[in-house]
Amino acid sequence: MKKRRIAVMVASRANYGRVRSVLRAINSHSKLELVLIVGASALLYRFGSVVDLIEEDGFEIASKIYTVVEGENPTTMAKSVGLSIIELTTQLENLCPDILLTVADRYETMATAIAASYMNIPVAHTQGGELTGSIDESVRHAITKLAHIHFPATKLSKDRLIRMGEDARFVFNLGCPAIDEIANINLNLEKNFFLNVGGSGDNINQYEDYLVVLQHPVTTEYGQDSAHIIETIESIKKLAMQTVWLWPNVDAGSDDISKQLRQFVNSQRDFSLRLYRNFSVQDYAKLIYNCKCLVGNSSSGIREAAFLGVPSVNIGNRQLGRERGSNVLDVNNDRAKIFHAIKKQMSRQAIKRDYRFGNGTAGKKIAEILATVTPEIQKKMAY
Amino acid sequence: MKKRRIAVMVASRANYGRVRSVLRAINSHSKLELVLIVGASALLYRFGSVVDLIEEDGFEIASKIYTVVEGENPTTMAKSVGLSIIELTTQLENLCPDILLTVADRYETMATAIAASYMNIPVAHTQGGELTGSIDESVRHAITKLAHIHFPATKLSKDRLIRMGEDARFVFNLGCPAIDEIANINLNLEKNFFLNVGGSGDNINQYEDYLVVLQHPVTTEYGQDSAHIIETIESIKKLAMQTVWLWPNVDAGSDDISKQLRQFVNSQRDFSLRLYRNFSVQDYAKLIYNCKCLVGNSSSGIREAAFLGVPSVNIGNRQLGRERGSNVLDVNNDRAKIFHAIKKQMSRQAIKRDYRFGNGTAGKKIAEILATVTPEIQKKMAY
Amino acid sequence: MKKRRIAVMVASRANYGRVRSVLRAINSHSKLELVLIVGASALLYRFGSVVDLIEEDGFEIASKIYTVVEGENPTTMAKSVGLSIIELTTQLENLCPDILLTVADRYETMATAIAASYMNIPVAHTQGGELTGSIDESVRHAITKLAHIHFPATKLSKDRLIRMGEDARFVFNLGCPAIDEIANINLNLEKNFFLNVGGSGDNINQYEDYLVVLQHPVTTEYGQDSAHIIETIESIKKLAMQTVWLWPNVDAGSDDISKQLRQFVNSQRDFSLRLYRNFSVQDYAKLIYNCKCLVGNSSSGIREAAFLGVPSVNIGNRQLGRERGSNVLDVNNDRAKIFHAIKKQMSRQAIKRDYRFGNGTAGKKIAEILATVTPEIQKKMAY
Amino acid sequence: MKKRRIAVMVASRANYGRVRSVLRAINSHSKLELVLIVGASALLYRFGSVVDLIEEDGFEIASKIYTVVEGENPTTMAKSVGLSIIELTTQLENLCPDILLTVADRYETMATAIAASYMNIPVAHTQGGELTGSIDESVRHAITKLAHIHFPATKLSKDRLIRMGEDARFVFNLGCPAIDEIANINLNLEKNFFLNVGGSGDNINQYEDYLVVLQHPVTTEYGQDSAHIIETIESIKKLAMQTVWLWPNVDAGSDDISKQLRQFVNSQRDFSLRLYRNFSVQDYAKLIYNCKCLVGNSSSGIREAAFLGVPSVNIGNRQLGRERGSNVLDVNNDRAKIFHAIKKQMSRQAIKRDYRFGNGTAGKKIAEILATVTPEIQKKMAY
Repeated sequence: MKKRRIAVMVASRANYGRVRSVLRAINSHSKLELVLIVGASALLYRFGSVVDLIEEDGFEIASKIYTVVEGENPTTMAKSVGLSIIELTTQLENLCPDILLTVADRYETMATAIAASYMNIPVAHTQGGELTGSIDESVRHAITKLAHIHFPATKLSKDRLIRMGEDARFVFNLGCPAIDEIANINLNLEKNFFLNVGGSGDNINQYEDYLVVLQHPVTTEYGQDSAHIIETIESIKKLAMQTVWLWPNVDAGSDDISKQLRQFVNSQRDFSLRLYRNFSVQDYAKLIYNCKCLVGNSSSGIREAAFLGVPSVNIGNRQLGRERGSNVLDVNNDRAKIFHAIKKQMSRQAIKRDYRFGNGTAGKKIAEILATVTPEIQKKMAY
Repeated sequence: MKKRRIAVMVASRANYGRVRSVLRAINSHSKLELVLIVGASALLYRFGSVVDLIEEDGFEIASKIYTVVEGENPTTMAKSVGLSIIELTTQLENLCPDILLTVADRYETMATAIAASYMNIPVAHTQGGELTGSIDESVRHAITKLAHIHFPATKLSKDRLIRMGEDARFVFNLGCPAIDEIANINLNLEKNFFLNVGGSGDNINQYEDYLVVLQHPVTTEYGQDSAHIIETIESIKKLAMQTVWLWPNVDAGSDDISKQLRQFVNSQRDFSLRLYRNFSVQDYAKLIYNCKCLVGNSSSGIREAAFLGVPSVNIGNRQLGRERGSNVLDVNNDRAKIFHAIKKQMSRQAIKRDYRFGNGTAGKKIAEILATVTPEIQKKMAY
Repeated sequence: MKKRRIAVMVASRANYGRVRSVLRAINSHSKLELVLIVGASALLYRFGSVVDLIEEDGFEIASKIYTVVEGENPTTMAKSVGLSIIELTTQLENLCPDILLTVADRYETMATAIAASYMNIPVAHTQGGELTGSIDESVRHAITKLAHIHFPATKLSKDRLIRMGEDARFVFNLGCPAIDEIANINLNLEKNFFLNVGGSGDNINQYEDYLVVLQHPVTTEYGQDSAHIIETIESIKKLAMQTVWLWPNVDAGSDDISKQLRQFVNSQRDFSLRLYRNFSVQDYAKLIYNCKCLVGNSSSGIREAAFLGVPSVNIGNRQLGRERGSNVLDVNNDRAKIFHAIKKQMSRQAIKRDYRFGNGTAGKKIAEILATVTPEIQKKMAY
Repeated sequence: MKKRRIAVMVASRANYGRVRSVLRAINSHSKLELVLIVGASALLYRFGSVVDLIEEDGFEIASKIYTVVEGENPTTMAKSVGLSIIELTTQLENLCPDILLTVADRYETMATAIAASYMNIPVAHTQGGELTGSIDESVRHAITKLAHIHFPATKLSKDRLIRMGEDARFVFNLGCPAIDEIANINLNLEKNFFLNVGGSGDNINQYEDYLVVLQHPVTTEYGQDSAHIIETIESIKKLAMQTVWLWPNVDAGSDDISKQLRQFVNSQRDFSLRLYRNFSVQDYAKLIYNCKCLVGNSSSGIREAAFLGVPSVNIGNRQLGRERGSNVLDVNNDRAKIFHAIKKQMSRQAIKRDYRFGNGTAGKKIAEILATVTPEIQKKMAY
């Protein structure tokens, strides 16, 4: 019997972490064949050449497409959607997948959903139904409206998709594949962890307390990213603890954040500061599992941190409305509030693990659905 | 005071008819300035060079963009979305509108909604919340999820948008601007109507009964368009009445339909057949107001025909789920059923006008909202 | 030993005829592997779906790329170069050819030459060094300057390439592959030739004298194509002989020509007129071999007609400067001059075959060079 | 009288320096109107946001276009040509220039030449006829073949253009506009020069000897850039003099060079090293005028350095074949040879200024030609 061909586009390091367990499960499934497309920032050196990780992990890449129009502002983000669609259509035409699986809510995701749906290829979508701030919010729901099969990460998200008019027969709450990656690993830091995983700047003493910071630009607040990141930097300066900082995603506003970070790195300080471009998913889990507090506006402060029981301080509007557990403390972009929130979170007792985002089995279950579902190419609203 | 700059993209003859009264109202409004972008098939000779109509109507065009990748199949339709986004972003960057108004559900509409929403320009959208078949169905709802201000054409559509989670403060049911175009005109056919408005093929006697046929491809049934159009052609052959036929939209599948139409035109027959590429909105209203029955799968059989009280036979899935009045009779793609449906519709008494799609005042009301609304760029789901 | 991978892009029916014998020779060569890319008008129904011919001929297609931005004016022609480059780069990246062979001087040819040369893939080019009118003239020489290996079609062209500074070690005069296609075929018209090969319009009596007309737009005279084609039409009307007419290439100005042709077809006349979208190369050779005169501005009036000994009337500037034999009579776009030139050419005795454009062995010789040449990626001017 | 509209695209800091005096002269000319398009790396923060300089200089920008596809490898360079053409055609269509002036030989230059020539807009080109290494060599000559008016920078280049078949009536040797920028300025370093002009790293003592290094990737040697830059770095380490280093251009291979530079900056050393992203043209002239030796593969080592009488060491193949004066010493990518060449150049007596690249009046003369020339849109080879 001919295997079903499942196309997946990996477009960034975040993407990859959120779909890798599905890729493995597709590769292992007797009725599925993986058609892997790697594009966008996943191909770029500036963002850690995720493509190399993918090849090291043993996945065969069907095609590589360069789709990022440089500029990191709203105009070029939109333009990159356009270029992605132009590139993807040719790949889909020549690769002929039976289903396309797409991840979350970024502009490459939008491009995959448009290309496939116009080409009558059923679209499967993970992480639909969540609420956040930023343009990602609108884009995520727009993709839902183009998608034929939904794999929301939580019960609440599933219910929301159905309220939005999606056909309940095609909405499956199986948990988030990102959790699979960290569910069964040794979470202790091996010796010389901080040097082994790269980075630049000062050394971090892994046997002492440290913070982790990851703050992305907020596209709907374009122009304010500099001011916002300065608040966070100042709070960290006042805490004066050793700190691991990750460079932000490529997005409108990244340049502004990077500029401030470069100044911070070059400034005088009496605590250690180390910067990283990217981590493997597992190393990232270890990194945050062992930190005193995860600070910023990454979704990992809400999702992975919930599963691992890590206290996090979530700053500003980027995760606005996102479902969250008790490990999260929300604050505005205000140096004093950030400072106090981190202090408070560091003083908490052990936090109980929260399985609302999955229990580590999502990848296999999603692959099984992809192998057996009969999608209906003509979508119908439920009302 | 600085006027609000309202960008509108006109991308096809259908588009233009559905937004012209808004364009006029914007031009007349003391607080609004029109920024008109003309692109896609509106620029092309094959589709009647709508751009010439627009200039004859006295609208100033801010920019023209060529965005159609030739091929008329699902791949090139998707690719045209990509090219449209690339072109539009540059125009929006250089033209700096305050709001972008976009019409209905075609691929150029999708492109405008993506470009503007990523660029933090509020998107206003007409005709959201309707149900149909084809990829237009998904695309329409996806655009809703990107749009900030909604101008649905009916009460039912308004209610549906709110159920989908849109903020009720920004959903306005003001009727469809297409109705404005035909609400206050003389609907009688002037002398020599059929020759004056162009076309090719046989002459039509305007004092005798005639049919009008307009059947577009259905993108989600790509590959079946030939078979479907043959059913319609055969039913018309059997009826053997004089018939006015309109060439289909540019869409995946148009080539297949055009091929069959060319054969039909060249075939032997004992009744008159005349083909037209396009009509002005007013001429089209007269054309259908005076016909015995409107046949095909155009939305005009449901919308304009309802307002004008014209019996129509709606074939196949393209309008699946669209709200309709009692003037419409639905049939499958089956020559016998089409034949009998036309017979039945032609035998009906005068049909009462139905104002569910508007009463002829939409354009002015929409312009007023555009002048006064305070859109919120960060969208939030209602639940 | 690993075979050399030779990428060839076929972009139009003209292209295909000029490279088919090379494709066959590559396929037959023990050290070469063909990587065939089909794009541009070769994929389009409006231009005879050359892709179907290619598949019928048994060539395996590595990828199909849609690259024509619709509009047929100077803006969209240029835009199509841009889209072609975007598409081609991804294909070349994923297909990894050792050499790219590109044909003649159209915009897709320019795109292949740019994509490959920037990607450090040696470019081989046929038909360099010729002189003509139109933008093709500049484009042909620009491609020469990007190309690493040259296959000019004549001795004169070879000499010109060397004068332009190309390295004589990489300039090979082996004749034009288009001649290979017609060198060893039966040139008699089989019974019912004109019906069998398709077309539309009146029947042509193959046992009586007929003319063949093929007139393309001239891009550097954009806006004058209507006026020019009318001159030709009027001369044919006056001759009132049965006439076979071919639709023009897709190019800026095609729409204008097609419009006039449609009117001509629909007009009253007392001679037969039959239109064709395209021919196989062999059928085209038979068609012109047996006609009384070939009229228009196609290069076939100069090249194939020379080899076959067919009298031709070459109109206007499109072939300006192109090397030609004694079979050609040149005239301006003037109905009287065209009329008299055709009369004069029809009265000539048998014309001797002229082998300046090749003797039918180009394909094999080109393949052999492709298998053995050692191109130098860093080009150097000879002076 | 209507002014002639002269479109100029500025695409990089190098571009800008080589055309600024022409821009000023166009702005001052009573019969000319400047239509300035800014795109490519001139818009990007990573490359010093040249667009800000342009606005500070008082030039009005007609449109901004984002055209760089990120990746900095041969594939994305080619893809950027494609995107540039797509963007430019729309701008040219909407801005309607009478002539387009384009600079030198980079991929944006190629894009402007293709867009304009296909659109029947006469192309004027500076710096044609020069010889260098890299893909720039082929591209420069290809642009010559598309261009209608030529402004070569030297007598030798003029002669070469004519030998290549260009029409001598349209070839004007008026010198290089880049020389205009530095012809009449005070070349002394003002106090605190090195801090005032920005940069990062160690301080440079402007009263002591220093070197300047600027080494770009060589696209036709893609993959070897790391190895090559290491040779240069090692030679500088051995010299152990204070050194000013400029980051390379965006091009395939830049990432590799930047990586090595970052390691060099972070390494231990006992001499000062300061890095700069970009200089104003004037500051750059001062910088090299006062240095002991200019090292690398920038054309400024050959052109500006000749005019200023600065000794330079030119490394590797990037400037292969370029005309040069006696101030230049050429070496291979070999640390020992580079070391000795710098030593030798530093020991030379004052070097005489060489005016072969112009005397400071090019801008005005070029503007005058642009105002008066009557270009012929249909090019003809001279032989």
